[in-house]
Amino acid sequence: MTASAPPTPPAPSSERARQVLRGDVRAGARLMRDLDDRVPSALVELRELYPHTGRAYVLGLTGNPGVGKSTVVDALIGAYRKEGKRVGVVAVDPTSPFTGGAILGDRIRMQQHALDAGVFIRSLATRGQLGGMSRSTFDVALVLDAMGYDLVLIETVGVGQDEIDVMRAAHTTVVITVPGLGDDIQAIKAGILETADVLVVNKADREGADRAVRDLMHMLELRDADGGRRDVEIVKTIAAWGLRDGSGMDDLLQAIAGHRERMASGPEGERRAEARAAAYVAELVKGLLADRAALGMEKAGGLAEVARAVAIRALDPYTAADEIVRVLDK
Amino acid sequence: MTASAPPTPPAPSSERARQVLRGDVRAGARLMRDLDDRVPSALVELRELYPHTGRAYVLGLTGNPGVGKSTVVDALIGAYRKEGKRVGVVAVDPTSPFTGGAILGDRIRMQQHALDAGVFIRSLATRGQLGGMSRSTFDVALVLDAMGYDLVLIETVGVGQDEIDVMRAAHTTVVITVPGLGDDIQAIKAGILETADVLVVNKADREGADRAVRDLMHMLELRDADGGRRDVEIVKTIAAWGLRDGSGMDDLLQAIAGHRERMASGPEGERRAEARAAAYVAELVKGLLADRAALGMEKAGGLAEVARAVAIRALDPYTAADEIVRVLDK
Repeated sequence: MTASAPPTPPAPSSERARQVLRGDVRAGARLMRDLDDRVPSALVELRELYPHTGRAYVLGLTGNPGVGKSTVVDALIGAYRKEGKRVGVVAVDPTSPFTGGAILGDRIRMQQHALDAGVFIRSLATRGQLGGMSRSTFDVALVLDAMGYDLVLIETVGVGQDEIDVMRAAHTTVVITVPGLGDDIQAIKAGILETADVLVVNKADREGADRAVRDLMHMLELRDADGGRRDVEIVKTIAAWGLRDGSGMDDLLQAIAGHRERMASGPEGERRAEARAAAYVAELVKGLLADRAALGMEKAGGLAEVARAVAIRALDPYTAADEIVRVLDK
Repeated sequence: MTASAPPTPPAPSSERARQVLRGDVRAGARLMRDLDDRVPSALVELRELYPHTGRAYVLGLTGNPGVGKSTVVDALIGAYRKEGKRVGVVAVDPTSPFTGGAILGDRIRMQQHALDAGVFIRSLATRGQLGGMSRSTFDVALVLDAMGYDLVLIETVGVGQDEIDVMRAAHTTVVITVPGLGDDIQAIKAGILETADVLVVNKADREGADRAVRDLMHMLELRDADGGRRDVEIVKTIAAWGLRDGSGMDDLLQAIAGHRERMASGPEGERRAEARAAAYVAELVKGLLADRAALGMEKAGGLAEVARAVAIRALDPYTAADEIVRVLDK
């Protein structure tokens, strides 16, 4: 297949998709909601929007709870807005009826930007669906791109496999940590370190900031020795609400811009564009197969009967799974 | 299907599986390794072992990095050994060439028990495979059960979706937190709180322990109001290496025993046995479908060509995914 992009993509057939391309906020929000609900017409719109996308720069930010991610994101939004850039935000968070004041508070503080027409914030609740978060993140980032936002910031809470998957949508990935996480500073998973383009030691006015930087440098050296050599800058920041200049924010902005520049030219940028596309397609394939698995279980008379037999040891789980997949092929 | 368990399951056909049933440590370790590598004969052995299992009590422990999970697990192992029970441990951890002293140190300290024939510790590296961790955890817990361990402790680092999936293998789930996580104490995801049977506030000698307990009680009340009412005990502990009595450990042991007792009788215990079986089967189905997706991508000439076309916007990712799944059906 030697494909080349069409020079002028055709205008979408649906009115709403055309509104999205004009940056209409309500049309964009509705399309996102319909994509969440897997409305078939919304998927058609996404297909038609796709050739119009690829202009936004996607920045991923992740780190353990308590490292001040929202504060850093807030400061970045402010800085990019100052440059006159329009910013879309995808906040992947463990929205829950049980989350009390704090996270909600952060969200509300961040929503100060919601009064700014140049900022669009979309929260994605984690749902526990197979591949669901990563797929949704790709979809929402794509809509924000189509809407004409210059930057798309993806913020995720935590550093598990979900976050690694979500970060696959980003052009540049920023991993945030803090000094004095004690024994567990090394608990940044290998996979996350592997995805990091910029490492931030936030709350760098705390004791142990220099040690944290040294630890991270050591981890990077080990990684490089392993053959995965890549430029990764380490930046110290002291992000605080309302504080946008100084305190390392300029260094962070420069580190991000530097990575972006390095990716703009050369084969590495191209390789990563293909890796992002591959990750998106793989997520969609997973989703289609998961739908199929659900259908298979339904056809097999639901999982309840099978589970009962497995629970009382009358049937083993491997045989049960084989049978469900076999039903699916009929 | 009205199945009933056979009264005396037949002895496994393979010698190694029979050795596993006699508690042979080397045979068990080898079977686990072969299961990791998906050796077909190992899966046959697991099927034959399955009717012999269901005796072990599976205890899951999870919490954010830095809450002292390993310390609590160590104390529990010591306490159960004192009661003369045999203990198997599945440590699901972000094993990485980059983890330095701390986590490794914990593991080594925990390995003091490795000299004790009544304790078997198996570490599972996170691999980023689709459903891989949860499936491996179920498999290893099953082998430990077949080997005759009275208790199987599953320890996971983090509170993401992976951990929620892994905790589905447990009879009783203990979620550990600490005081003073600051703004992010609420960052325990709803899904994890939903799985908690016992909540532990560890390092309870720190400031803010009572506030943490109150916060958790409040979160549970919100949950109960939501219709999910269930007894959950909150226990304060001060776990430290070598310290096994007092410091709340007795309270924790009692809370676990209390939950176990409540589950032993009544429909809730039965319902949960079926939920565990259903989760195991669902993981296996996911795994089979993931294998199939990989095969489909291979058949489609690899993902690389497709990714290139998607990256340059000549093909949209949804159409690409549909085509890959279509190839799979041929």
